Amino acid sequence: MPPMDEPLLLREDRDGVATLTLNRPRARNALSVGLLGALSDAFAGLAQDESVRVVVIAGAGPAFCAGHDLKEMTAFRAEADRGAARFAALFDLCSAVMMAIPALPQPVIAAVEGVATAAGCQLVASCDLAVAGEEARFATPGVQIGLFCSTPMVALSRNLSRKAAMALLLTAEMADAAEAKDLGLVNRVVRAGTALAEAQALAASIAARSAYTVRVGKRAFYEQIEMPLSDAYAHAGRVMTENMLARAAEEGIGAFLSRRG
Amino acid sequence: MPPMDEPLLLREDRDGVATLTLNRPRARNALSVGLLGALSDAFAGLAQDESVRVVVIAGAGPAFCAGHDLKEMTAFRAEADRGAARFAALFDLCSAVMMAIPALPQPVIAAVEGVATAAGCQLVASCDLAVAGEEARFATPGVQIGLFCSTPMVALSRNLSRKAAMALLLTAEMADAAEAKDLGLVNRVVRAGTALAEAQALAASIAARSAYTVRVGKRAFYEQIEMPLSDAYAHAGRVMTENMLARAAEEGIGAFLSRRG
Amino acid sequence: MPPMDEPLLLREDRDGVATLTLNRPRARNALSVGLLGALSDAFAGLAQDESVRVVVIAGAGPAFCAGHDLKEMTAFRAEADRGAARFAALFDLCSAVMMAIPALPQPVIAAVEGVATAAGCQLVASCDLAVAGEEARFATPGVQIGLFCSTPMVALSRNLSRKAAMALLLTAEMADAAEAKDLGLVNRVVRAGTALAEAQALAASIAARSAYTVRVGKRAFYEQIEMPLSDAYAHAGRVMTENMLARAAEEGIGAFLSRRG
Repeated sequence: MPPMDEPLLLREDRDGVATLTLNRPRARNALSVGLLGALSDAFAGLAQDESVRVVVIAGAGPAFCAGHDLKEMTAFRAEADRGAARFAALFDLCSAVMMAIPALPQPVIAAVEGVATAAGCQLVASCDLAVAGEEARFATPGVQIGLFCSTPMVALSRNLSRKAAMALLLTAEMADAAEAKDLGLVNRVVRAGTALAEAQALAASIAARSAYTVRVGKRAFYEQIEMPLSDAYAHAGRVMTENMLARAAEEGIGAFLSRRG
Repeated sequence: MPPMDEPLLLREDRDGVATLTLNRPRARNALSVGLLGALSDAFAGLAQDESVRVVVIAGAGPAFCAGHDLKEMTAFRAEADRGAARFAALFDLCSAVMMAIPALPQPVIAAVEGVATAAGCQLVASCDLAVAGEEARFATPGVQIGLFCSTPMVALSRNLSRKAAMALLLTAEMADAAEAKDLGLVNRVVRAGTALAEAQALAASIAARSAYTVRVGKRAFYEQIEMPLSDAYAHAGRVMTENMLARAAEEGIGAFLSRRG
Repeated sequence: MPPMDEPLLLREDRDGVATLTLNRPRARNALSVGLLGALSDAFAGLAQDESVRVVVIAGAGPAFCAGHDLKEMTAFRAEADRGAARFAALFDLCSAVMMAIPALPQPVIAAVEGVATAAGCQLVASCDLAVAGEEARFATPGVQIGLFCSTPMVALSRNLSRKAAMALLLTAEMADAAEAKDLGLVNRVVRAGTALAEAQALAASIAARSAYTVRVGKRAFYEQIEMPLSDAYAHAGRVMTENMLARAAEEGIGAFLSRRG
């Protein structure tokens, strides 16, 4: 545990990129109620913060995130209902945090070094993009301890093929960074120790674009993805029309056409 | 054809793993009405059989499964309705068998050597996991004989990318084991002739887990996969809460925490 | 611009394969209102044309298609509503053209050399199959000019994994042909300059099949893909039964069985 005065979640803003660092390194950044609450608050703040154009999520210390805090959860068993209400509240909070990522106006990039397991793996899957150091490893090993990774599977099964997701869930096996890239869980594998810097460089390149345009596009992506094809096109067509009428497109297209001559 | 007294489907149980063997080797294990009925009965029995924790499906002889039994189907044409009722009943039975696999409480692993074509390829796609010998080959070649693989496409298009599924369906080309792995149709490629042993070893490793936990997780996987994101999380959160209150998780997490000290 | 008397879209039919060539090479085959209208008309004609069994789409000159015609769109800004009505009509037309491809009875194969960007990349994603020359490149770079590729994302996100689609959309980076194959955007990568010939050869092999069977199968593919599993099987089962009763299957299966003896 960090000292009492050390926050569970660090935030550092630079040039439109906010880096959130899970800061429970001695607990391998396990998602305690406190850390999930801090993430929830951070996302709520970012959703209103027009100075931030891209968000990066990293972990302090050697692990990215080892999932739920099993010690804390076990303590809940002392309650009169054997923890039922606390468990339900915890999973609701965790799911709300995971769903807040696609709902954020800014793109969110995971920067993964070390292990990302269970809800930690879910956190990577929930981000819009992910960069992994070549020694990063990914697993959903809940089956090993009697607690199937059922909430992580929601994010996993929307990013990986069915059999690949099932294999991770049923076998608890570790996927290395290269495998995770093949499976669609991460976008880039970089030299070990450079995932944060590379994720921030990627963030900076996106932050250099029109924030309005990026926001419109990210929102449309998640809105249309669950629609039937024709509804998706009707919606995306409206989004494109509005986007064309915005200053960002007028200026961007104007500049592009004058460069081409 | 095997002798009359040879069953169309063999079942051998060992240490919680039931191995079903399609046993029409001279017909390349074609899915006749009889064999589909035997599979249907076997799955109905397994669904109630708590002694079985994982199921493996293999084929007797050099082929895994060559799809429907075209000779039998052609004989149906002699009926007054030119076979219409028999064809409809056959496809209903076959679809029920394929849908029984995700509905089974136990994980089902295909062990594929030789060809898995048409409904045989669909059978592989319908299993939760698949292990293939390196000489296994996969195709949906119905278009070659005027009968498009329309029911196989249901399973195929939920496992492969759209263009990959379309290519298999439209060209009738064989995918080898390595391609099938790239496409998401199988999880592992192993030395030719060892697919059954490897699938059984994989099954044994899953059978060593809490059967309750595996059952809860598999069911949740297929329940949530067709839901919108927020419904999926609401459902999975309830599943996780119940799972936490079960003895498997209490003991598993307890043992894990005491090992970590 | 081609001379006034040069059509915006060329069509050449040979042996049941219709090749459509986007013919605005100096505008890198940008999808002007005129070219989209020509595509729309061509697809409407092909939908009724039983002599055509497969369609190939290629681009004249070094580019496949650079997306929308930004010059034309900018001219729309002179209207009283700043172009709002024209933009909406353009995106509606473009979406109708893209949706006409899965709705066509014939399989459609993209033959890609050079760049396929923005709506040009969407056109590739919308085809049933795609063959790319090894120097072909793919991008959805709208974010660079303030106009997010929101309509292209509809096709992209139904063909690629989420993070792969998001990366293309947010970074505007070019994917080369090999990457596009890995991502599921194209089926085959061939020697530069041979994409059209290879696509036509692939088309010819499909054109050699029963046109009825191919039509039935393609239609069923897109009908079932958005259904829940059990509805998809019920539908595909009906399709298979009808297909079995058609002459194509009766003859094809009969010939197959007599070859096998």
